[in-house]
Amino acid sequence: MADLAIGIDIGGTNTKFGVVDRNGHILEQGRTLTNDKSTPQDFIEDLFTKIQPMIERLGGKEKFAGIGIGAPNGNYYTGNIEYAANLKWPGIIPFASMMSTRFDMRVKLTNDANAAAMGEMMYGAARGMKHFITITLGTGVGSGIVIDGKIVLGHDGFAGELGHTIIRPGGRLHKGTHIHGPLEAYASATGMRETALEMLATQSDTPSLMRELKPEDITSQSVYEAAVKGDKIAQEVFAFTGQLLGEALANFVMFSSPEAIVLFGGVTKAGDMILNPTRQAMEANLVQVFKNKVKLMFSELKEADAAILGASALIWEA
Amino acid sequence: MADLAIGIDIGGTNTKFGVVDRNGHILEQGRTLTNDKSTPQDFIEDLFTKIQPMIERLGGKEKFAGIGIGAPNGNYYTGNIEYAANLKWPGIIPFASMMSTRFDMRVKLTNDANAAAMGEMMYGAARGMKHFITITLGTGVGSGIVIDGKIVLGHDGFAGELGHTIIRPGGRLHKGTHIHGPLEAYASATGMRETALEMLATQSDTPSLMRELKPEDITSQSVYEAAVKGDKIAQEVFAFTGQLLGEALANFVMFSSPEAIVLFGGVTKAGDMILNPTRQAMEANLVQVFKNKVKLMFSELKEADAAILGASALIWEA
Repeated sequence: MADLAIGIDIGGTNTKFGVVDRNGHILEQGRTLTNDKSTPQDFIEDLFTKIQPMIERLGGKEKFAGIGIGAPNGNYYTGNIEYAANLKWPGIIPFASMMSTRFDMRVKLTNDANAAAMGEMMYGAARGMKHFITITLGTGVGSGIVIDGKIVLGHDGFAGELGHTIIRPGGRLHKGTHIHGPLEAYASATGMRETALEMLATQSDTPSLMRELKPEDITSQSVYEAAVKGDKIAQEVFAFTGQLLGEALANFVMFSSPEAIVLFGGVTKAGDMILNPTRQAMEANLVQVFKNKVKLMFSELKEADAAILGASALIWEA
Repeated sequence: MADLAIGIDIGGTNTKFGVVDRNGHILEQGRTLTNDKSTPQDFIEDLFTKIQPMIERLGGKEKFAGIGIGAPNGNYYTGNIEYAANLKWPGIIPFASMMSTRFDMRVKLTNDANAAAMGEMMYGAARGMKHFITITLGTGVGSGIVIDGKIVLGHDGFAGELGHTIIRPGGRLHKGTHIHGPLEAYASATGMRETALEMLATQSDTPSLMRELKPEDITSQSVYEAAVKGDKIAQEVFAFTGQLLGEALANFVMFSSPEAIVLFGGVTKAGDMILNPTRQAMEANLVQVFKNKVKLMFSELKEADAAILGASALIWEA
């Protein structure tokens, strides 16, 4: 019986993959670099070389129901990866179809944030929920929206780009999109670093542990470490980031009225330092009917696992 | 055969109702005042007195599949009207159940903006579309969101309150919700009037036709009339309103990636005067993958008809 699936999470730097059973147990896993392959063909060949031995160890191809993939700008409807800014392969790549040919298996593909949301729904904090939103606070800000138990794809497969919604009109420039004031420019790890650098510059009389670091060593992690030690500016960075993130979440709640919002990614390692100001700002901007209803929580899954699990779940769902 | 339905659109001032066939033809219609009835019971009794003769003229109860209702803060899941700010009856009213008892018919209820979206999907500009958003620019700003051919209700039935999403953090106070900067404070007829009053005050040296009006006579309609005659401040009011509305629409597009956004309501009578700046601001704030894809259009239905048709459609859908 085909009761195993392969889940693959393609990232700009690393690609992780695993063999997953129907209960969400990852039986084997591995990883490879993504962008050192000059063509998608080379990349697929590398994946085949690494995954094929796993398939054979676990009983051969007939044990496998298929391959699920989460990829930047992956489109569920077409199976293509389209103009992904973080991948070096240009244009539109018929990735699902190429994988299917090479592995001789059924392949489903979606974008990486949607795969993570799927993992959360089937095996994580959102188990049993039919309405929730996942927000990944990493190098960028990704999102997956679930309504009535289904990932929202929109009419063209590109729905759920909440990191690009504008929260400060005319505000900070997003270097990738050249648009001012999107959530991603503030609530990503990159955005937090920029907030820290700005605050260190404008409050030049205020002492800060972060002044001991070289500017290039200031990251969301070092801001967190300083904040824990009582650093005033570092704490302000979290208060500000939480304020903006909370306002954005309030807008999302008034769109789809989810039961929960699940936060993932590097920035969430700060725990209550980011969660408390976010929750406070979210509640302050919700109209009465939504107040004190929405669970704001962290993912229960390791980030890499969520995406592998979610990608594999595409196969059970399809 | 039960091939007729009754559609009722409950508004803060007027309630409109009609008998509708499966093809969306309104065979008879009428209206009554809403808030001069001191209890929901009195209101239902009044509706019964006015609708019962229609039912008899059109062949009696067995011709009717049921009654669909759009109401402020109407909840599809419960059939209740819950804490509606524009209605004088307080608390939670089990309106669908009360109507069903009085008329001895099946009754479905949803909120008024969702009923309008349903009308647009079945009989209006969004015919055949599975992903679209309707925005009503009236006294307030209402919205209905359709994803995969279904109205988005959220986990509690209250999704789609896009008029309350924040577009100017810390901006204009919404008098009803006491929250700063929501779309409704700017893009409603009421918000446009406030923008006009503000601009007249801050640009006191600029001549304007609107200065000939008493402040209480300045409405979105009089702003429109002045703008058509070339009034500079009035034209600025539209440019500003369109800018903010367009930014908000961009955010909505990046949430659910709809095929179209359909605009309804009094403010849309200004035609291109509101549509052009709105479209321009929306496109300017969309990331590449969404640009020049979303149809921004006006409703094809008369506003009252849309809600009656949409309410009646609840019966065919259920």
